[in-house]
Amino acid sequence: MGDMVSTPMVIVDADTLDRNISTMADALRKKGIALRPHVKTHKIVEIARKQKAAGASGLSVATIGEAEVFAEVVDDLFIAYPLWLTRSSAARLIEVAEHARVAFGVDSVDGARNAGARLGDAAPRFEVLIEVDSGHRRSGVHPDGAAQVAEAAVAAGLRVAGVFTFPGHSYGVDQAEPAARDEAKALRRATRLLAESGVPVRIRSGGSTPSALVSDGDVLTEARPGVYVFGDAQQWELGRTEPVDIALTVLATVISRSDDPGGRRIVLDSGSKILGADRPGYVSGFGRLLDYPQARITALSEHHATVEFPDGAPLPVRGSRIRVVPNHVCTVLNLVDAVAVARGGLVVDTWPVAARGRNS
Amino acid sequence: MGDMVSTPMVIVDADTLDRNISTMADALRKKGIALRPHVKTHKIVEIARKQKAAGASGLSVATIGEAEVFAEVVDDLFIAYPLWLTRSSAARLIEVAEHARVAFGVDSVDGARNAGARLGDAAPRFEVLIEVDSGHRRSGVHPDGAAQVAEAAVAAGLRVAGVFTFPGHSYGVDQAEPAARDEAKALRRATRLLAESGVPVRIRSGGSTPSALVSDGDVLTEARPGVYVFGDAQQWELGRTEPVDIALTVLATVISRSDDPGGRRIVLDSGSKILGADRPGYVSGFGRLLDYPQARITALSEHHATVEFPDGAPLPVRGSRIRVVPNHVCTVLNLVDAVAVARGGLVVDTWPVAARGRNS
Repeated sequence: MGDMVSTPMVIVDADTLDRNISTMADALRKKGIALRPHVKTHKIVEIARKQKAAGASGLSVATIGEAEVFAEVVDDLFIAYPLWLTRSSAARLIEVAEHARVAFGVDSVDGARNAGARLGDAAPRFEVLIEVDSGHRRSGVHPDGAAQVAEAAVAAGLRVAGVFTFPGHSYGVDQAEPAARDEAKALRRATRLLAESGVPVRIRSGGSTPSALVSDGDVLTEARPGVYVFGDAQQWELGRTEPVDIALTVLATVISRSDDPGGRRIVLDSGSKILGADRPGYVSGFGRLLDYPQARITALSEHHATVEFPDGAPLPVRGSRIRVVPNHVCTVLNLVDAVAVARGGLVVDTWPVAARGRNS
Repeated sequence: MGDMVSTPMVIVDADTLDRNISTMADALRKKGIALRPHVKTHKIVEIARKQKAAGASGLSVATIGEAEVFAEVVDDLFIAYPLWLTRSSAARLIEVAEHARVAFGVDSVDGARNAGARLGDAAPRFEVLIEVDSGHRRSGVHPDGAAQVAEAAVAAGLRVAGVFTFPGHSYGVDQAEPAARDEAKALRRATRLLAESGVPVRIRSGGSTPSALVSDGDVLTEARPGVYVFGDAQQWELGRTEPVDIALTVLATVISRSDDPGGRRIVLDSGSKILGADRPGYVSGFGRLLDYPQARITALSEHHATVEFPDGAPLPVRGSRIRVVPNHVCTVLNLVDAVAVARGGLVVDTWPVAARGRNS
């Protein structure tokens, strides 16, 4: 990348991206699980089109704002979130449903009543999926309580299409397989209880990038991985991706350097305002350097990444351009208005991050 | 805040903001230290105008992109960063200098040579400040090496106006006073060495929000605090601000709730995509709830904040609106395109975050 690219800059390698999109699509097709990619990862219309072309059954989004953007790409959207509707957000949701089939999440009796009341006569235009907690302990009702929520949804005039969960505890060393088992167990139990209450389950939706490939094809009807399109340092350190399959890096410049034997370090111009500050306990730093796997990003401030090198490893000189792999790629796309698209190391295009900042 | 405000939403309380701006201005005036606020915190033109009206001598910015935005507000800018210039960034810097006095940081002989070479004939239009490390161990030359860098800057055709440091190690429990002493010591030593090399020092610039009020008025000629305009949960937990003086909150909605005795929790719709994910070791969670000081944000994902409550404390009901104080306010402003401005609890205006995403 030449001198004319300013840093820090998000670069997407299009060949790697294309490969990641088809690898996941092929793998889930073989398992008989529909792929409904979560676009909160990339927020980019051009990438959603590629996912659709590779056979995605629809898209998952996190917010009504994201649904508004991606209704232009597909006609089948799932807001994988237990919405609490206000008058204004209900009006926006109804508008999106003019352009696409829209489903959304409900995880409580109160939430079902709220949605039914806010949507009023428009309620039957939507499908809802009951969110169950499969062990991540965030949102979602305990599977034992799923039928009660489903009954409240039906009573509120909503159409219940199935159940969903996010096995977020798959983000941990050696946690993908056990989390996938928890996911299947929770969805199976909720399905049985709903059926016993007279609410048939058509959709059982699960999946995260770590767990999607090991998820149970006998239970899940669809999966919602997001990060797989790019990969990131979390997936790398969890052993769920190889460096060669990482499709997004932040190009940064060495702006400071110290050869002090007490701490041999360089400072890059890629701080938390472009890398994001996510740092789960299982990772080795605030991101990784693609071409210096032995280096560690030991500190991050807004416009500085401090990188320590082991004794003996040569320190890059000031002005060098370095490719940084962020820890959690979803937060990076939310920090930039556009990404540079490269093929064979040359920037060939720019894509706007159309849904950046669409938090509500 | 009524039903028509969508959440999550950043709300600035204008009365508190005004008070914080005048309190810091008055305190530094009494110490005889010029106030050059760092606008990377807010990135908002309307707030910079208030700071100028309260007597700011100029503004500090982190990037050339921020300088481009704030050159419309003041005619005196300091890019408090050791820039590594390319041909294109040098051209942008020269353009900014058409509209304002511009100074920037240099922390190495290489950096001085790079700046001199890139700026060419335009070099004398700029002033540079030598960045010294006062103990934060990020960028900045050791004070003992400051004169060598200054000599290289002079040789490269740059005008050296002084020295600066960022005592970032002031961010820690009971660290403000020792960090302020380190700051004064480093600036004093660098000043003496530059003077001995025949480079007179006019500006000694330091200061962070924790250290500004305890900084040494006999050494510093100016200070660059940023966060003081809003305050945040870091400052609250460090004892550097009181809840009543916090001017920015994220309004969030309770979207999920569990009364499980094993973990009584609510989930808010304010995730890391609006709160930021900064979590230094000394804080108690991923932000604080202004009206529930006993609650703890124990987990944060992109669109969920999980909040645990102690036994006995009543859990807010679903649909409640909650005011969240983010850990690190600078990263929040970088996540939204606009903020709502409130007076007396009513939204009275909207300010665009003009320099959001200006990372380069």
